[in-house]
Amino acid sequence: MAKDEKKLVEEITPMDEDFAQWYTDIIKKAHLCDYSGVRGCMVIEPYGYAIWENIQKELDSRFKATGHKNVYMPVFIPESLLQKEKDHVEGFAPEVAWVTHGGNEKLAERLCVRPTSETLFCNYYAGAIHSYRDLPKLCNQWCSVVRWEKTTRPFLRSSEFLWQEGHTAHATEEEAQEETLRMLNVYADFCEEVLAIPVIKGRKTDKEKFAGANATYTIESLMHDGKALQSGTSHNFGDGFARAFGIQYTDENNELKYVHQTSWGMSTRIIGAIIMVHGDDAGLKLPPRIAPVQVAIVPVAQHKEGVLDKASELCGRLSERFRVKLDDSDKSPGWKFSEYEMLGVPVRLEIGPKDIEKNQAVLVSRITREKKFVSLNNIEDEIENLLNDIQKEMFDAALKNREEKTSTARTYDEFKKCIAEKGGFVKAMWCGDVACEEKIKEETTATSRCMPFEQEKISDRCVCCGKPAKKMVYWGKAY
Amino acid sequence: MAKDEKKLVEEITPMDEDFAQWYTDIIKKAHLCDYSGVRGCMVIEPYGYAIWENIQKELDSRFKATGHKNVYMPVFIPESLLQKEKDHVEGFAPEVAWVTHGGNEKLAERLCVRPTSETLFCNYYAGAIHSYRDLPKLCNQWCSVVRWEKTTRPFLRSSEFLWQEGHTAHATEEEAQEETLRMLNVYADFCEEVLAIPVIKGRKTDKEKFAGANATYTIESLMHDGKALQSGTSHNFGDGFARAFGIQYTDENNELKYVHQTSWGMSTRIIGAIIMVHGDDAGLKLPPRIAPVQVAIVPVAQHKEGVLDKASELCGRLSERFRVKLDDSDKSPGWKFSEYEMLGVPVRLEIGPKDIEKNQAVLVSRITREKKFVSLNNIEDEIENLLNDIQKEMFDAALKNREEKTSTARTYDEFKKCIAEKGGFVKAMWCGDVACEEKIKEETTATSRCMPFEQEKISDRCVCCGKPAKKMVYWGKAY
Repeated sequence: MAKDEKKLVEEITPMDEDFAQWYTDIIKKAHLCDYSGVRGCMVIEPYGYAIWENIQKELDSRFKATGHKNVYMPVFIPESLLQKEKDHVEGFAPEVAWVTHGGNEKLAERLCVRPTSETLFCNYYAGAIHSYRDLPKLCNQWCSVVRWEKTTRPFLRSSEFLWQEGHTAHATEEEAQEETLRMLNVYADFCEEVLAIPVIKGRKTDKEKFAGANATYTIESLMHDGKALQSGTSHNFGDGFARAFGIQYTDENNELKYVHQTSWGMSTRIIGAIIMVHGDDAGLKLPPRIAPVQVAIVPVAQHKEGVLDKASELCGRLSERFRVKLDDSDKSPGWKFSEYEMLGVPVRLEIGPKDIEKNQAVLVSRITREKKFVSLNNIEDEIENLLNDIQKEMFDAALKNREEKTSTARTYDEFKKCIAEKGGFVKAMWCGDVACEEKIKEETTATSRCMPFEQEKISDRCVCCGKPAKKMVYWGKAY
Repeated sequence: MAKDEKKLVEEITPMDEDFAQWYTDIIKKAHLCDYSGVRGCMVIEPYGYAIWENIQKELDSRFKATGHKNVYMPVFIPESLLQKEKDHVEGFAPEVAWVTHGGNEKLAERLCVRPTSETLFCNYYAGAIHSYRDLPKLCNQWCSVVRWEKTTRPFLRSSEFLWQEGHTAHATEEEAQEETLRMLNVYADFCEEVLAIPVIKGRKTDKEKFAGANATYTIESLMHDGKALQSGTSHNFGDGFARAFGIQYTDENNELKYVHQTSWGMSTRIIGAIIMVHGDDAGLKLPPRIAPVQVAIVPVAQHKEGVLDKASELCGRLSERFRVKLDDSDKSPGWKFSEYEMLGVPVRLEIGPKDIEKNQAVLVSRITREKKFVSLNNIEDEIENLLNDIQKEMFDAALKNREEKTSTARTYDEFKKCIAEKGGFVKAMWCGDVACEEKIKEETTATSRCMPFEQEKISDRCVCCGKPAKKMVYWGKAY
């Protein structure tokens, strides 16, 4: 390894030494985002934003396939509107940014910068919904939201972040529940199939649910360091918001009824999950299906006649099927190898004079690091297969990590030991009492992640208080 | 015409009677946007947002083809950052919204909600640019911005609007100027080819240029009522911002130099232009290339056996090439005809039992309203041709309107008469003195729209003061 390549790699702190520093190093070296000089707000740089654009494209097509349409609501919420639903305002008012002046004038009423848009959608729906013919309303919005966080970390917790928020209104309770679970499944499939991140699907306890919701459902993923990350949520509001905002419709029998509502969201947080589920000490590993560059072409001995021409021709050819980048800069091939590893590009393609003579190229997988010599005749199919293999290997590795870091606890001693020594998810029974959740959080810093849909009966008793158990719960320390 | 169809059409005020009311009626009836209960902010509804998504797709691919990458900057600008460039802060400070509190705490420094992001990009570039190898920086951002407007109109002037803002940094003055004009041409081509809106390309006078720019270039379009609309702008900043923010690079000779910068933007205002350039008393007319629905299929006698099946089969077939909607609701065909006219859908396809017998369908153009019976065998090609014809006819009609409403004035009396009686663009010579612009504005309410690239020598004298003329200027009342 030449000196300059070594330097590039050395600048990333090994993950076992300091995971938080590793995370920050990756974000900085791969130019995913930058600090902005605005407290708690990020600059999402081109490479980070390109990942987000691919996430958007995949999610948006799934939302549209399930009948949703995009809209745009105002960035501001008048204080009186935020206050209409009691639980909701209690949950969000302490962490919003307040606009008090427009130009040089003091406003008659303060406006908050939206922390989420339930109140705006409700206000709109109250005017737009009249009859059963207007239902269901299936809307989504891509935007930024602001929550005034005290401590922030890029992607994971920032004062401003990007997300999508779906907001729907239905004629019946059953339809709203179907929608809530449909969208949770859309998120779960997206995470597993596109991001190669296995998730646990389940319901949040009342303590952890969204402010104003009847029920919150979640997908939970496990990072490489054994901490959990809430990766997407879907809420059933029942008719609570509808009653607060007066959203009524006349049904087929001309009776006036309240609608039933849902909302669901996924944010740029998920980029943090991609980094922490897949990355290693050499850098990012990006799942092929959202990698901004799927194939990086690195010419070898590019000063020799014909090499750059051939590499450029190949780049043009491959661009018809893949996202390809040809790096013909004057950096050394070794430097480029390290750089594209660090950037998490799934496949590196090397081509030099000897390869050209043999009508071949070298493909190197970011995951296995194996080299494979392939003929240029059918290189597209070889790349396609390799990308599919990588996508699958990444999912399998993430699942293996999660399984290794998932324990079962029957007693509170066992529970505390698992959380303290092993980390990861701990499966344990729970009585349903918030006091036990609070005690566990205080004594172990672990929280209830979810009551999974796939229940197991580990014992009859709550792991904390010993009273009869109601649910098996996934517990863990979380981001 | 049945009673219910008549009602739908009657609700739109004729444009010759009251153009402003016609505009508002269209927006409301076509569900493009809704008032939000937040002062001066719109709810962009699904149909309006779908138009914006098509605009985004077309523009974004042009930006990427010219080497630009998307990023995301914070929604907030600290007051001290906004103040760094003197002209810029003077232009924007009076119309920004100020955040003074986060949660329950008063902020040490006020933050404004971005009215435009030059200062944020400059702050980022100051840290990200070191050497000539880092140049050019070619970034773009899709976001919303806030300008505290006193009087607002949907799409045309609102306190919050959506836009894109490109921000670039270059090694030399020449490169920055090339970029400024390149992006102006991207906007012009997009307007003419995609939106079917002819534009005048030119430079703004110093009075009308962007706060902080050396030069602002614009594309100006003419609405049906003879008022002008600034439809996109591209600014050359020279090194003014670079000096204020300290954005320097070392060149090939290891000398420290300031970068030269540009910015350029197009907003949801352009949706207002689409409405006002193309619409008529029956409603919207959408250019096929951005219409959310290009073909509306209306079954005739849909209760008869086989009609809906055939319509649905046709919908599936056409969806492979076009954006198609099948309306199988229980409204009458006549109602549907009016509704899709009002929504500006370029092509209506009618199919009933007799058509099915003859293996044909009826195509009706929104522009010519001509009916054409076409065989189902090659209906895709027929539709393709019709959409292309419509796109061209719309451009030609808009160009004809602009030409009819463009006058030439040699004397100030002529000038005042043209503005007062005919409206539209008036071409007249100008001495270059801001005093004449101010006098003209005060006495006629017309403003200088631009100094067009295609200059004509109408006379030697300024139309206002009679001193020697420097430039031919397009003047007009503007939105």
